[in-house]
Amino acid sequence: MSTHRIDCLQYANWSEKIFRQMREGAVDAVHVTIAYHENFRETVLNMEQWNRWFEQYPDLICHARTGADVRLAKQDGRTAIIFGFQNPSPIEDDIGLVEILHTLGARFMQLSYNNQSLLATGCYEVEDPGITRMGKQVIKEMNRVGLVVDMSHSADRSTIEAADISERPIAITHANPHSWHPALRNKKDDVIRAVTQNGGMIGFSLYPHHLKDKSACTLESFCQMVADAADRFGAANLGIGSDLCQDQPDSVVEWMRVGRWTKEIDYGEGSASAPGFPPMPDWFTDNRDFGNIQSGLAHVGFDEGEIAGIMGENWLRFFDANFGRME
Amino acid sequence: MSTHRIDCLQYANWSEKIFRQMREGAVDAVHVTIAYHENFRETVLNMEQWNRWFEQYPDLICHARTGADVRLAKQDGRTAIIFGFQNPSPIEDDIGLVEILHTLGARFMQLSYNNQSLLATGCYEVEDPGITRMGKQVIKEMNRVGLVVDMSHSADRSTIEAADISERPIAITHANPHSWHPALRNKKDDVIRAVTQNGGMIGFSLYPHHLKDKSACTLESFCQMVADAADRFGAANLGIGSDLCQDQPDSVVEWMRVGRWTKEIDYGEGSASAPGFPPMPDWFTDNRDFGNIQSGLAHVGFDEGEIAGIMGENWLRFFDANFGRME
Repeated sequence: MSTHRIDCLQYANWSEKIFRQMREGAVDAVHVTIAYHENFRETVLNMEQWNRWFEQYPDLICHARTGADVRLAKQDGRTAIIFGFQNPSPIEDDIGLVEILHTLGARFMQLSYNNQSLLATGCYEVEDPGITRMGKQVIKEMNRVGLVVDMSHSADRSTIEAADISERPIAITHANPHSWHPALRNKKDDVIRAVTQNGGMIGFSLYPHHLKDKSACTLESFCQMVADAADRFGAANLGIGSDLCQDQPDSVVEWMRVGRWTKEIDYGEGSASAPGFPPMPDWFTDNRDFGNIQSGLAHVGFDEGEIAGIMGENWLRFFDANFGRME
Repeated sequence: MSTHRIDCLQYANWSEKIFRQMREGAVDAVHVTIAYHENFRETVLNMEQWNRWFEQYPDLICHARTGADVRLAKQDGRTAIIFGFQNPSPIEDDIGLVEILHTLGARFMQLSYNNQSLLATGCYEVEDPGITRMGKQVIKEMNRVGLVVDMSHSADRSTIEAADISERPIAITHANPHSWHPALRNKKDDVIRAVTQNGGMIGFSLYPHHLKDKSACTLESFCQMVADAADRFGAANLGIGSDLCQDQPDSVVEWMRVGRWTKEIDYGEGSASAPGFPPMPDWFTDNRDFGNIQSGLAHVGFDEGEIAGIMGENWLRFFDANFGRME
């Protein structure tokens, strides 16, 4: 296979087992979440852990900062790891940390995670006043250094404004169309259009709360959703961002949801009766299952070039254009 | 001039004026101190300040991570800035920060600054028990990533042990021979020999407390000291590390000496009657005066190749060999 297979979001309980499954699944690059609610120092500790894994498993994984690094990784038979944050907490209140964290490898940063942040509004807030004063400054700085604005967990107005304010394409790394499954986290058509019409990307999520019929979602339904999205937004702006949280204990989904911002339980997309991670659909349980999606896309009528794009080449082209300094 | 002029230590009160003087003095690279007693976060703040200066003065300075970057800077007519620490405080108690800080550009780190550190002993301690358990681990990690061990402010035994333990050459970036001027900070011959005999470097200091006759030291005396050192240690292992602290208020020398480790005043190399920065010798007051040293070296009998080496080519060769990952 000469084209690249890329998953633009995972947050697994990383292990040698999972890294080997990435190789078995021929996954050439994975955008991994380094921070949910972590501050700068805690984020650096997470990077230190990744540095240890790069030292321990040099035949399986390597750190990628550019599209070229992804191509090299594929040539070497390794999976390229790309760092990202689901929240702007790593930059704290300090715009200078945008460049510092980019230097350390960060390539995606969400402007908000479910709640209001210093920069933008999250998708669970009642009110969305749009991009803040600091948010405008930080988008400009992210554009300058090549840190991609990710609005996966942001609210509608904030997302549309971010797409408009940003001088470079932005991304929704992991979500699905609201028209297919009306979860708060899924994106309405005008939001997806605002992102994709200027070269931005949406990565489709396999997280059951984002799927029609949740864990019982069929491969065909998922792939037909991708086909419908291609009709509306263009196949060149679509990719995968599986949101795979493999092997995580349920304590982690609680951390993702409540961080340190509340003393009460917040069930997010779950509920009191189903507070943990939902079971994955049986056709996508780990990195070895990307072939199922590839086959499913063929089954709903995509041609070879479109499938190569959705399975990774579209993300790779996006990385090439958006991970470096602004020209 | 096709050879490179390099100063392997300055800690000025940086400004556009000083950056312009670097260009006037044809200084191709400067190793700048980023931290004395700063912890990790404070060190990152200092790097952020440098990032601002790189943005503000792109025609004068640029950030260098390799010898190749120094050559490019010279071609562009800019001064290459290399980051270093005078203390291991930026890594706190966390060996993982060695690689993180190297990724952010750090290329020299002193294992101790005057006092005992977690890694080694400083030159003002009464007892020097040598390199600590953590010190041995950190030297190994510094060797791995390409962060140079600098022992300028360390005690004798610790320095000799560091030279022995390190698998790569180490440096004394700024000090002079004790035999010429017996300051506690200057280095005895066996210490210099331990460093230079395996490819290490010593950079000669212009800081008056390190000079014979201090501020009244003559250019000829300084250059004759260099000639004597070349006889004993080889001209190829010598360079300049001026320790220029231009435009700093006296509050800064107090910070350098006392940091946060004492509530009492410690005068270091100064005294109660002369607590501030001493005046520089009149033949070396700022970056425009490197030509005086170059002329002085010719006057005491060095040949053209030796002068080129001492003025920068020796440091450049050392950077090429020691700033990258261990092969």
